Amino acid sequence: MDFEVYVLGTGGMQPLPRRFLNSALVRRKGELFLFDAGEGTQVALKKLSLHWKKINKIFISHMHADHVTGLPGLLMLSSQVDRDEPLHIYGPSPLEEYIEASRRILDMYINYEIVIHTISQNATIVDSDEYCIKAFELDHRKQCFGYTLIEKERNGEFNKDKAIELGVPMGPLWGKLQRGEDVCVDGKVIKSSDIVGEKRKGRKFSFITDTTYTEDAASHVFGSDLLLIEGMFEHALIKDAHEKKHLTVVESATIAKDAEAKKAGFMHHSPRYSESELKRLEKEGKEVYPNVFMCKDGMHFDIPLKS
Amino acid sequence: MDFEVYVLGTGGMQPLPRRFLNSALVRRKGELFLFDAGEGTQVALKKLSLHWKKINKIFISHMHADHVTGLPGLLMLSSQVDRDEPLHIYGPSPLEEYIEASRRILDMYINYEIVIHTISQNATIVDSDEYCIKAFELDHRKQCFGYTLIEKERNGEFNKDKAIELGVPMGPLWGKLQRGEDVCVDGKVIKSSDIVGEKRKGRKFSFITDTTYTEDAASHVFGSDLLLIEGMFEHALIKDAHEKKHLTVVESATIAKDAEAKKAGFMHHSPRYSESELKRLEKEGKEVYPNVFMCKDGMHFDIPLKS
Repeated sequence: MDFEVYVLGTGGMQPLPRRFLNSALVRRKGELFLFDAGEGTQVALKKLSLHWKKINKIFISHMHADHVTGLPGLLMLSSQVDRDEPLHIYGPSPLEEYIEASRRILDMYINYEIVIHTISQNATIVDSDEYCIKAFELDHRKQCFGYTLIEKERNGEFNKDKAIELGVPMGPLWGKLQRGEDVCVDGKVIKSSDIVGEKRKGRKFSFITDTTYTEDAASHVFGSDLLLIEGMFEHALIKDAHEKKHLTVVESATIAKDAEAKKAGFMHHSPRYSESELKRLEKEGKEVYPNVFMCKDGMHFDIPLKS
Repeated sequence: MDFEVYVLGTGGMQPLPRRFLNSALVRRKGELFLFDAGEGTQVALKKLSLHWKKINKIFISHMHADHVTGLPGLLMLSSQVDRDEPLHIYGPSPLEEYIEASRRILDMYINYEIVIHTISQNATIVDSDEYCIKAFELDHRKQCFGYTLIEKERNGEFNKDKAIELGVPMGPLWGKLQRGEDVCVDGKVIKSSDIVGEKRKGRKFSFITDTTYTEDAASHVFGSDLLLIEGMFEHALIKDAHEKKHLTVVESATIAKDAEAKKAGFMHHSPRYSESELKRLEKEGKEVYPNVFMCKDGMHFDIPLKS
């Protein structure tokens, strides 16, 4: 599979302190993206048996301890491999101050370049040939961003039989047709649209934590194939949730529903809930939107290509 | 038992990233002392099922990431209980800067007083009625201290039968005799030394990490009932050990032997070693001093009173 998502806690130890379950690793065509880095993330990564030390980009939702204290260990451990490309880290202020202070105070040995991108407003923060990554502001006790990775449309399916039938020889002309260009063969114009199907939709992964309910969150993650979203409280604790600027599972499920997410996993549960109580929270969420479920440490998802 | 020691990794998950196995909790007569706070220490503490959130004192060996990045989470989690006494944290510079920067940058919620004691040279840093705690400088890449908790001598055993035989009535006079004072009964002097045995030796726990070999380390931990000491490398890697200012197990065992430690546990192993290779390292150490052994995450020791 070329688009995978792993939910990260602290490496599968039980009982898991649930607040820890708030980070995720995305592997897409060999690139690695980490979303948040709670304490113990390096242990969870180690358990995956991936070559994770060459993470390409890290996205930090906000600068609270439980979302970033895994960073220093992770950055140091990544020095065990050689890398040519810098590591890009995105997040709101004071991300840069945190990393600079940690490096200085703790004499951190890091043998590669780190590029820090401070986000202060909604923006497309990565724009590559095949995908873009957007940050959108949430509403928490300090500035906080959600992220969404959106693949661009792929070219439509190439009908080889039709190409041969119309007399286009295999070679560079096929490439042109595939890229949407019409070509000329023996003085005859062959339209790309006659041979190549409609553009195929890209895939979408989204990550939302920590926030109180906002109406526009759903619009940013609309059409996600997988949405990871905090599921901190049961709905009876909505007053606590509002005070602490967190979501109840009913609110999380409402966002997932409004976003028409194919799947939406609840993470970052309050430590007050036992395993069986989390089942109850899942049920609360499913009553709003059946596509939601509870995340577990190390959970793995494939997001298949769309035809 | 009134004097217990727990070795802390990250809560028993396997495979344990071995560098993590570098912290310890001491519980003595209801007081809790934490030695170093590597990433994930709060998870290891949680596994112990102790009321650990009221840790009284924390001792930090040195300000490298793998010995302190568990602190922020630990300090925040400790706010879940009420406490009257402040939490005292001891360690070399820049301990205070680290804690202040973490609190400020990460908006850490802490509902109790933290008193930071910066250590810059060998000193008795705690001196109570029953014990003292000493810090002694090690030799690492940045200033680093070992710690030893030394119980003071206890009064000798009180011979009740003898007291009655000599006509001393049970009551305040017994207390005086026990405290070493002679008393007068019916004009006759009764010597404390006739009724109370010799002073009984206290117990001693010591903690050494990270350091290159120094001759005087052993003198500071002399007579330890339990010494926890880094066992980073096999002796074949002594050149690496010297360069990185760490110990080989042969050096660690030599310190334990010179200190006549009753037991000495190797912790903080290089992550290069598998479980079976650690057996080999243990064997190397035992050839120098049979009282050494390999520590495991969650290992627990009782240090019994001396008669």
